[in-house]
Amino acid sequence: MTAGETAGNRAGETVGELGEWGLIGELAARMPAGRYSSIGIGDDSAVVTAPSGDVVAAVDLLLEGRHFLRSWSSAFDVGVKAAARSLADIAAMGATPTALLVAVGLPGALPVSWALDLASGLASEASRAGAGIVGGDTAAADSVMLSVTALGDLAGVSAIRRGGAVAGDVVAVAGPLGHSAAGHALLRSGAVSPGSLVLPDSAANSGLSTLVAAHLRPAPPYDAGPEAARLGATAMIDVSDGLVADLGHIATASGVVIDVAASALLVSFGGSPLFDAAAVVAAPETDIAESTMLDWILGGGEDHSLVATFPPSVTLPPRWRVIGDARPAVGAGGVMVDGKPYSGPGGWQHFR
Amino acid sequence: MTAGETAGNRAGETVGELGEWGLIGELAARMPAGRYSSIGIGDDSAVVTAPSGDVVAAVDLLLEGRHFLRSWSSAFDVGVKAAARSLADIAAMGATPTALLVAVGLPGALPVSWALDLASGLASEASRAGAGIVGGDTAAADSVMLSVTALGDLAGVSAIRRGGAVAGDVVAVAGPLGHSAAGHALLRSGAVSPGSLVLPDSAANSGLSTLVAAHLRPAPPYDAGPEAARLGATAMIDVSDGLVADLGHIATASGVVIDVAASALLVSFGGSPLFDAAAVVAAPETDIAESTMLDWILGGGEDHSLVATFPPSVTLPPRWRVIGDARPAVGAGGVMVDGKPYSGPGGWQHFR
Repeated sequence: MTAGETAGNRAGETVGELGEWGLIGELAARMPAGRYSSIGIGDDSAVVTAPSGDVVAAVDLLLEGRHFLRSWSSAFDVGVKAAARSLADIAAMGATPTALLVAVGLPGALPVSWALDLASGLASEASRAGAGIVGGDTAAADSVMLSVTALGDLAGVSAIRRGGAVAGDVVAVAGPLGHSAAGHALLRSGAVSPGSLVLPDSAANSGLSTLVAAHLRPAPPYDAGPEAARLGATAMIDVSDGLVADLGHIATASGVVIDVAASALLVSFGGSPLFDAAAVVAAPETDIAESTMLDWILGGGEDHSLVATFPPSVTLPPRWRVIGDARPAVGAGGVMVDGKPYSGPGGWQHFR
Repeated sequence: MTAGETAGNRAGETVGELGEWGLIGELAARMPAGRYSSIGIGDDSAVVTAPSGDVVAAVDLLLEGRHFLRSWSSAFDVGVKAAARSLADIAAMGATPTALLVAVGLPGALPVSWALDLASGLASEASRAGAGIVGGDTAAADSVMLSVTALGDLAGVSAIRRGGAVAGDVVAVAGPLGHSAAGHALLRSGAVSPGSLVLPDSAANSGLSTLVAAHLRPAPPYDAGPEAARLGATAMIDVSDGLVADLGHIATASGVVIDVAASALLVSFGGSPLFDAAAVVAAPETDIAESTMLDWILGGGEDHSLVATFPPSVTLPPRWRVIGDARPAVGAGGVMVDGKPYSGPGGWQHFR
């Protein structure tokens, strides 16, 4: 299902006209049960298998006007993004996603087709991660809001926390950096209009649409999380607030200094760039300095790629690109770029 | 902590002034870790033990203006209610609550003290259920919104679903019925003003404040859920939409007719009433007919008491009050009251 596609048999009908039970039925029919649940949607609670004897769990909010705009994001995009944010938190522990629970608030005047496309986006990304959608809640709200809870299983590995990095570790990232920020900047500048691109189903394609897709539909490399755990990662996090901000969480929790080599961020690794600078340079009517691209990479966030620390003896598969190392901290831990404090955007805070 | 009590050292400060990281720190400091989590708040995900090899999970939304009013409910009340709604879904499967994840949207202009009282309410109810609060998310929003995910463990029993009732079963309820609806009606009529009562910590007290407290701070009998499972319950649900509506879910899923005896609903069971009619009759400036009380009991909902079906051979502990039985269905299942279809309120739908 592509972003522009809608459920044609609901043309013009609103969520309010369909009513709560009708809507729940239509949404539930679009949700993948997944392989891990013995009881899914339709009872008081879901029952999800937890073979390791532990369950990994995280929740994330996605609010219209705060985290997305309906003028930029299709309903399908919103569903993908809401699922990806929570699923990436499971992968960042080294766990395998098993299930999502989705609470949605929707305006009564919203077209039913929009709600069904939202469900398709959620279902698509859950399925890409191997997870089912096993429960949820709906309510009328003034704007679109989602709260997605993701569950996962450790499948024989230990959870990878933020505080385990030690001096001497290498820092490596799986997935792109700065693409979401670049896509956001391109959309905001008007260089790209959201309806003008046929978005790829994932950020695996290249070109401008990659950058916009990375912003509208992040595609975290979920299986890189358990892979990192099996390789012996000492700390891991997903890049949601920004590379420097998120590495800062690892550095502070671990009591180390993490030094990122800027030179590593704009080169290709085996022909596959960490950041697709060529696409930006080729964008019409844009003239973007390399320093701007570096700010996107270092401060942008929302790519939901995984960044981890590994002992230097570990042989990393090609998708893990080394971008720095951990060093002893004098005093509190922190992050440096090329040995110097980073003065660019270091993440952002809500409410302010 | 009582409803009126606030964190005095934050007088006048708003959520926006404190900022996201500061707020998260203050909220997290008030959350009980519980006995079941090995990793709690502060990493990408929580890790919660699931000794039975399955995890029971449910999510519920609580939105300002839809599910509560800040003019009626204190922040503490809102926290209790948000936690209770989700925790009751765990108990209704026969499971023991283990953990909550709480996503909150808060206006930047909200006093920090309100947010901290909200956290105290969540913490209080989670602790009453034996659960920790192990993760969450925060965002700025135009009004207060909560999404609470509850997790639980089956602890050696099988999950009790909605579809297992058979003809001949008795229908029994643990916890009050109609109290929340009565409290809502008293608040709406102006017969009781929300600030005029010192609310008990739970609905265990009696009198008018019981009814208002039941609306503002439902107190589901969580341990009655696993108890029912051990006793051999064939179906169970928590009364959230209304007794008739929720029994309708059991009747439909099970393919039986459930007949509720109205005569059983207004009597005392061993001196403890299912519905505290005496408190209503004693209310100042109220003249409420018995039929109105029956409508509260049959249609009111939101008490989050547990209603279950049991084989007739089961000896039920006193807190399980028999209110009807299950009979063979001719055609689709449904609910009757005293052998006749019920024409009163049968639950309600969002969006409409």
